[in-house]
Amino acid sequence: MLFSEKIKTVQPSSTLAITSKAKAMAQDGADVIILAAGEPDFDTPDVIKEAAIKAIREGKTKYTPASGNKKLKELICRKLKADNGLTYDIDQIVVSNGAKHSLYNILQVMCNPGDEVLIVSPYWLSYPEMVKLAGGVPKVITTREENSFKLTPEDLRKALTDKAKALILNSPSNPAGVVYDKNELGKIADICGSKGIIIISDEIYEKILFDGKEHVSIASLSQEAKALTVVVNGLSKSYSMTGWRIGYMAGDKDIASMVSTLQSHATSNPCSISQAAAECALSTDLEAEMEKNRRIFQERRDVLLKSLQGIEMIKPFKPEGAFYMFCDVSKCGMDSLTFAQKLLEEKKVAVIPGDSFGDDRFIRISFATDPETIEEGVARIGEWVDSL
Amino acid sequence: MLFSEKIKTVQPSSTLAITSKAKAMAQDGADVIILAAGEPDFDTPDVIKEAAIKAIREGKTKYTPASGNKKLKELICRKLKADNGLTYDIDQIVVSNGAKHSLYNILQVMCNPGDEVLIVSPYWLSYPEMVKLAGGVPKVITTREENSFKLTPEDLRKALTDKAKALILNSPSNPAGVVYDKNELGKIADICGSKGIIIISDEIYEKILFDGKEHVSIASLSQEAKALTVVVNGLSKSYSMTGWRIGYMAGDKDIASMVSTLQSHATSNPCSISQAAAECALSTDLEAEMEKNRRIFQERRDVLLKSLQGIEMIKPFKPEGAFYMFCDVSKCGMDSLTFAQKLLEEKKVAVIPGDSFGDDRFIRISFATDPETIEEGVARIGEWVDSL
Repeated sequence: MLFSEKIKTVQPSSTLAITSKAKAMAQDGADVIILAAGEPDFDTPDVIKEAAIKAIREGKTKYTPASGNKKLKELICRKLKADNGLTYDIDQIVVSNGAKHSLYNILQVMCNPGDEVLIVSPYWLSYPEMVKLAGGVPKVITTREENSFKLTPEDLRKALTDKAKALILNSPSNPAGVVYDKNELGKIADICGSKGIIIISDEIYEKILFDGKEHVSIASLSQEAKALTVVVNGLSKSYSMTGWRIGYMAGDKDIASMVSTLQSHATSNPCSISQAAAECALSTDLEAEMEKNRRIFQERRDVLLKSLQGIEMIKPFKPEGAFYMFCDVSKCGMDSLTFAQKLLEEKKVAVIPGDSFGDDRFIRISFATDPETIEEGVARIGEWVDSL
Repeated sequence: MLFSEKIKTVQPSSTLAITSKAKAMAQDGADVIILAAGEPDFDTPDVIKEAAIKAIREGKTKYTPASGNKKLKELICRKLKADNGLTYDIDQIVVSNGAKHSLYNILQVMCNPGDEVLIVSPYWLSYPEMVKLAGGVPKVITTREENSFKLTPEDLRKALTDKAKALILNSPSNPAGVVYDKNELGKIADICGSKGIIIISDEIYEKILFDGKEHVSIASLSQEAKALTVVVNGLSKSYSMTGWRIGYMAGDKDIASMVSTLQSHATSNPCSISQAAAECALSTDLEAEMEKNRRIFQERRDVLLKSLQGIEMIKPFKPEGAFYMFCDVSKCGMDSLTFAQKLLEEKKVAVIPGDSFGDDRFIRISFATDPETIEEGVARIGEWVDSL
């Protein structure tokens, strides 16, 4: 069997390899500490669950429009207005099977062979693979820790060629928890505007912010910025709804129309029950529950940071959002995959190698788990690192 | 904004255009008869709905493996063995967001630019669009009504070029309700085998068969046929679960692995709740309910066929499976889109133009609705056709 050239260039995720192995070890009875989760450990709020149950009982088990129900799109428009100051019509919204799917779809309708899509490193591991799957060329811009892993105007300008088509921006970011402020986003928007570069703004971690940081959507800076930007967001991280698979894009009407056409032939509608759940999430006041979760994440971040302070060989980068800590382990004298594999084998602690995120000197520790687990995990990491 | 060349070649579905218009008319209070449905009008069986509700209550709201839960894959293997005589391991199965998504994924991992994928006309409208989205070239083989719209060995041989990569086969078929028997499939498998053509076998209408017809999976004919074939099926039509979006592929381990990798970067897992529902569907004895539904469809087919007999200008083709009737309206002196649009405007009856399925002389009438609606719809069609 001959496979397509593009699929042959795509890497199966090493994240999944490590977590699968850790889960298998746990199933075999091993005392494994998993600091690798990519999702909140909270359950979906009860009110949302009950709305889904009601939808099932009422027989909302049929096809919906491929791009999502009208009511859900209206609620997404309302959310974008209320939270982000962005005004869209419903025909500018497409609901997909998670924010990942929205990103994939946007790249599919946008990229021609050879088109460059700029990706800020450290990056979420699916970005380059999605660009390749769309026939594009991922062009990685490596940021530096002394710049707080932020894309600088200079770095962006240097990376721009005639083939540059789009920039994927992620704030708050996975894996480093980087949060861009208005001023920083403004400079990026200006450069993209002057060169006609589309901005794909992945805002999935919008609600998980620390130390009073605020989320700014780059699309909200000006009409020009909005015209350049496709906003991607979803329910997974904000409402602990990862399994349900509801994400969305908001942008230019033509992009929405193309994405909708693609989706109508590729997957059809996102699950009708999940759409009903999402409608509840976006029409119910869940601010208190979300704020509680946000605080819990901040406390856990602080627990993790404090625990790591005793380990000289590991240098954590303090995140301002999301639920990951990107940690420099280069002093340990091995690449990140070896580090993660050995740590799992020898101390039964699962972390994700930074290699997956474009930086082989780092590992990513997730704090989407309880403080006891975090402390026990870090204690084991400390012991192991000391023994090297 | 410049879009990708491939998305620009993809047609938004005229099926959707007609049905959207019909639904909009109905919402505005018009007395519209919709004979266009692509899904059973029955609700999902209660036992399945309750299993989903249980899953929600138990917090099965988290990520699952991208290719689906192990238990669901095991049940799919059991189904393929029991119903189709096919033995697969779980690493040969990938669960996706509906059978449509499985087909899309398979084509994505298979096609290189210029690869030809053979499609039997009349065809399900998404096949050519999916091939184009994968960078392949749809090569349509037009069948003839005198051959019962079946692909003949001669037609297949004639269509084969050096660039032919795969054949999409659909039995029972949409839109003509064609069901291939073992002998016919054997000849197709032999030709494909001799030329190394992959067979993508879309078996989604497997359970909806009339007049004692039996479903044969082409993969079941021999080990050689099985090695050539990727079987695609799903829960949507058999269990009235269209909105839930659960389909799957079974085939070569390498294809499954590639599809799984693609899916891990494009959409992640199908909805976790829907997977729980599917696990119930495949582990519960629902034969009696499915047989009842099958009989209802057969009775409706007969009602539709009988009603149409009085209309001289319309020549229906009697389907042996699925829930559509493909009807020759060429005597009416207009193309199928005009026919469908005028019928909707003048008599408020929605049918799908055959143009979407590769034959502009036909329309597709769905009988996935109650007999009264069918009779009223046909009465209006008769009046309108007589007035032409």
